[in-house]
Amino acid sequence: MTKLNVAVIGLGSMGYGMAASVARAGHTTWGFDLDEEAMARFRAREGGQEGALPDIAADLDVVVIVVLNAAQTESVLFGEAGIVAQMKPGATVLACATVPPSFARDMEARCNAVGLFYVDAPISGGSLKAHEGSLTIMASARAEAFAAARPVLDATAETVFELGDCAGGGSAMKAVNQLLAGVHIAAMGEAITFGITQGVTPAKFVEVISRCAGTSWMLENRAPHVVEGDYTPRSSINIWPKDLGIVLDIAREAKFSAPITAAALQQYMTAAATGLGQEDDAAIAKVYARNAGVKLPGQA
Amino acid sequence: MTKLNVAVIGLGSMGYGMAASVARAGHTTWGFDLDEEAMARFRAREGGQEGALPDIAADLDVVVIVVLNAAQTESVLFGEAGIVAQMKPGATVLACATVPPSFARDMEARCNAVGLFYVDAPISGGSLKAHEGSLTIMASARAEAFAAARPVLDATAETVFELGDCAGGGSAMKAVNQLLAGVHIAAMGEAITFGITQGVTPAKFVEVISRCAGTSWMLENRAPHVVEGDYTPRSSINIWPKDLGIVLDIAREAKFSAPITAAALQQYMTAAATGLGQEDDAAIAKVYARNAGVKLPGQA
Repeated sequence: MTKLNVAVIGLGSMGYGMAASVARAGHTTWGFDLDEEAMARFRAREGGQEGALPDIAADLDVVVIVVLNAAQTESVLFGEAGIVAQMKPGATVLACATVPPSFARDMEARCNAVGLFYVDAPISGGSLKAHEGSLTIMASARAEAFAAARPVLDATAETVFELGDCAGGGSAMKAVNQLLAGVHIAAMGEAITFGITQGVTPAKFVEVISRCAGTSWMLENRAPHVVEGDYTPRSSINIWPKDLGIVLDIAREAKFSAPITAAALQQYMTAAATGLGQEDDAAIAKVYARNAGVKLPGQA
Repeated sequence: MTKLNVAVIGLGSMGYGMAASVARAGHTTWGFDLDEEAMARFRAREGGQEGALPDIAADLDVVVIVVLNAAQTESVLFGEAGIVAQMKPGATVLACATVPPSFARDMEARCNAVGLFYVDAPISGGSLKAHEGSLTIMASARAEAFAAARPVLDATAETVFELGDCAGGGSAMKAVNQLLAGVHIAAMGEAITFGITQGVTPAKFVEVISRCAGTSWMLENRAPHVVEGDYTPRSSINIWPKDLGIVLDIAREAKFSAPITAAALQQYMTAAATGLGQEDDAAIAKVYARNAGVKLPGQA
């Protein structure tokens, strides 16, 4: 196996797990975050390397960027202390945030211009799969970039969809997936609470609907959280104003009318505004329950 | 096996298949419809019995009602030539239309008052499964009514969910399922067309998204129709203004705000108003494509 020097920038719930998976695969791995505690934990528990980013940047083969959005990605790459200026020619940027396809193409062009490879590589699967190294990655890149990033893709993903030979294809598919995932979670919340008003208990809802034409992957994954009244954030409400916002930004740019996505986004914004942002995204059902004056399991 | 006298009222795509399944199971079966050609076809091809409804109504054990909505169900049962007045005590009404739960409870009370059993039995699965006798039925009824209807349920359904000991429970679950099914088809149409604007082909959409968290039962069933450009109606657009209309009627009665369902309904109404009503419901994607100025597979 090729042993690489890898830095993961952003040790949130996804980035920390990815960094741990890269280190576990035997690569020399550094983890960086604004949260120094996360960095210390990564060094102490996952075998992360000591060293400041400016001191090791020139030695890196791959930089994995797992931040919140396009603005943070650009800042990490090209900001005041941007890493691109410090990296060696032929090194690779693996960019994992959900971003507009046009942004990904722009980043690729700017990286290529200074001799770096760029992989447009949005991730899917949640923090558990990040820790297990079994994410789904929707990737697009030049063939040489894919080849350079392959050991890191292997360490972090169970499934890598290769969606074209330049940046943008990965981000486009990620946006399509997020549109559906966000809508399906909100539709689950709408339906499970509507059911309560008609005498259908959440437990019966899961039992029957998960075997009917009305089911979805998200329904089967999230509706049990409502049944159990357990809103421990496996993936939080706060993801959705961001990700559906990106989808609608892309849609607006393309003059694409997306009324169902827009309706779902309103529900997530209401959830975030009323104190549910840190809860599991199944808590979207609480917005419906409050509006309808009904109680979900576990609500007093 | 108990050999019953059964009439199926309504020989549309679902009722015809159910009637054929009942006859195939060995019951003496009559089929009735306003369309005399459908009746003649049922007699000629499926072994349906000769005879006018008034002449055989008193001999029936079970009447299966497979009409469009609550108004037609009430008319068949209690209208001018309503069948309830002609049926023998202890006979059973199996009501299969999608109706409000409160309507089902009302029909049950009125049937019980004249000595008839009533099974609230909305159906799911499409015309192919109706023909195969492998529908899903979401049923609720008194135990004696379930027992009396059992041979017909066995002949027509692969799965019978028993959702309570009085009418309403079946219709409530059907409404919940239709809410989700209708939203998921429209969301599929929104996402697959959004994808086109971002360079994601419908074929790649199906390949990738059906293996990701954004998938749904309806997406996997309907999106291939878009890929193939085949809008032969397995289930038509026209179902949805009706069924989502019923969902929102029920919701309004319960003062339940259902913004995602409402947004989906607008798209189906646009589809129906622009000549797509008789097409497969995957044609909802055509509304999005026209609005966005893009072409779907098979569109010139």
